[in-house]
Amino acid sequence: MVTIGIDLGGTNIAAGLVNEEKKLVAKKSVPTLGKRPAEEIIRDMAQLALSLIRENELSEREVSAIGIGCPGTVDPHTGEIIFTPNLPFRRTNVREIFREYTSIPVYCGNDADAAALGEAYAGAAAGCSSAVMITLGTGVGGGVIIDKHIVSGFNGAGGELGHMVIVKDGEPCNCGRRGCWEAYSSATGLIRMTKAAMEKHPESALWKFAPSLGEVNGRTAFDGLRAGDPAAKEVVDEYVAYLATGLTNIINIFQPEVILLGGGVAKEGQFLIDLLLPQIDRERYGKDVAKTQIKPAMLGNDAGIIGAAMLGY
Amino acid sequence: MVTIGIDLGGTNIAAGLVNEEKKLVAKKSVPTLGKRPAEEIIRDMAQLALSLIRENELSEREVSAIGIGCPGTVDPHTGEIIFTPNLPFRRTNVREIFREYTSIPVYCGNDADAAALGEAYAGAAAGCSSAVMITLGTGVGGGVIIDKHIVSGFNGAGGELGHMVIVKDGEPCNCGRRGCWEAYSSATGLIRMTKAAMEKHPESALWKFAPSLGEVNGRTAFDGLRAGDPAAKEVVDEYVAYLATGLTNIINIFQPEVILLGGGVAKEGQFLIDLLLPQIDRERYGKDVAKTQIKPAMLGNDAGIIGAAMLGY
Repeated sequence: MVTIGIDLGGTNIAAGLVNEEKKLVAKKSVPTLGKRPAEEIIRDMAQLALSLIRENELSEREVSAIGIGCPGTVDPHTGEIIFTPNLPFRRTNVREIFREYTSIPVYCGNDADAAALGEAYAGAAAGCSSAVMITLGTGVGGGVIIDKHIVSGFNGAGGELGHMVIVKDGEPCNCGRRGCWEAYSSATGLIRMTKAAMEKHPESALWKFAPSLGEVNGRTAFDGLRAGDPAAKEVVDEYVAYLATGLTNIINIFQPEVILLGGGVAKEGQFLIDLLLPQIDRERYGKDVAKTQIKPAMLGNDAGIIGAAMLGY
Repeated sequence: MVTIGIDLGGTNIAAGLVNEEKKLVAKKSVPTLGKRPAEEIIRDMAQLALSLIRENELSEREVSAIGIGCPGTVDPHTGEIIFTPNLPFRRTNVREIFREYTSIPVYCGNDADAAALGEAYAGAAAGCSSAVMITLGTGVGGGVIIDKHIVSGFNGAGGELGHMVIVKDGEPCNCGRRGCWEAYSSATGLIRMTKAAMEKHPESALWKFAPSLGEVNGRTAFDGLRAGDPAAKEVVDEYVAYLATGLTNIINIFQPEVILLGGGVAKEGQFLIDLLLPQIDRERYGKDVAKTQIKPAMLGNDAGIIGAAMLGY
């Protein structure tokens, strides 16, 4: 039996066919066009799934489940998308609407959770009893997997690790709190710190990598550091200290077998991880026990599709 | 079938017989005398269990399991106590040593986790799909239960919710980090804040409730608040803000059906909870979903015994 995973994003709907070995064997996508009514987006998701089945010469009976990962809050029990930022879903029962198009059982989950599940089944956390995936992008996303199950709380809204306050009364966060981990450890937070350093240090080599403040991105400070710029080093040191603080919190709370880093900033890979480890090793609780490994995520965007395909497992 | 729960504390070893309805039907205790070798303490635990069986006219075959909750880090898979503060256990395989005294299967767990499990089976979280118990005592203890299972990580050291940093570079914590939740929300943290307010305000009514700084305890500030003292109100407001920050983090991470407050400071009960709720309601993630309830724990010290008895379930 195969399953289908759908990753519903703000820009594209990506769907894939996942075989019994948890391998993504076919993939296609269509634009989301997120300003349309939810029903039209759901119709396109269903038709994308059905076209994958047809094009791969399968029958619907050979597909055991369709899983959908989407941003926002999902009730995994009812198949309802409760709320998505930037998309028109408001207590929309996707499972029910899907029944108009196919009788294949439909499962829904949060997209960050689905990505973590994908890495746990088929990626960098395969074979681990527990894993936490942290996505360092525009925000800080989190997905917690224990024994191949998503930890999403009794209402489906859990795993919001980025909205853990690490600096009481600190920087404002989009969620309304102040001092959330996301406000410091997202690419957005890193860009804010980089810009502040550039304004303070007109002599800095950071200006070579980003000739104007509008050109600063999540790589700028790391590029400056590698070029030996002291202001860049200060930015990266600061960023790493906040990131390590949040990661150590996650270890003390979950002691997962592995923490995976994904998203834009994590493209720095082992270079970033090597910077993080000294503080984490110094601060983590339980020094006489086996240590949580910290690794880059492996599957990129495919993680969300594969994990969505596993939501029904 | 009945089970036996043992709560190994720094002062006393308490053991109890728990019936199929998860009720504590008999209880007895002996002093721990923690300076002795671990083997002697284990022998006394075994003899306490066996005397409970005899005195209640049971045979060993009628007891399906013995569970032991103890402070520190435990490997639930091997039955090893890896480390206990103030007690002589260092990678001590309690399960193996117990075999010298009885063939009843032995299970080990952390005491805060066991207390949370007890409340989940038979106390204030009975019937809930998930629960987090927070103990506000000398430290801040945590126990996380999902579907009646303890979340303790791949190495048994997880659930250390008190050692989540909420104030980066803040107050020093016993664990070696700075700014841990425990440093602010424990009774110890509250006492520190109360003393600081008293030194700053010699006119405060707090001095009536604690005539010297050495007499300050976790109740002093609450007593002062109820007497209308402005300095006491400042202390409680500050304490509540830190406690609510940590509790909101727990909600955003776990979205448990219920959070239970136990330990000394939680004796303030609903009065404390009513002070906490406005900030939590304002800050928690997922506003369109069912809310985590916050309630006082119910079973007091019995929670640890009942939960220990359930460790083998």
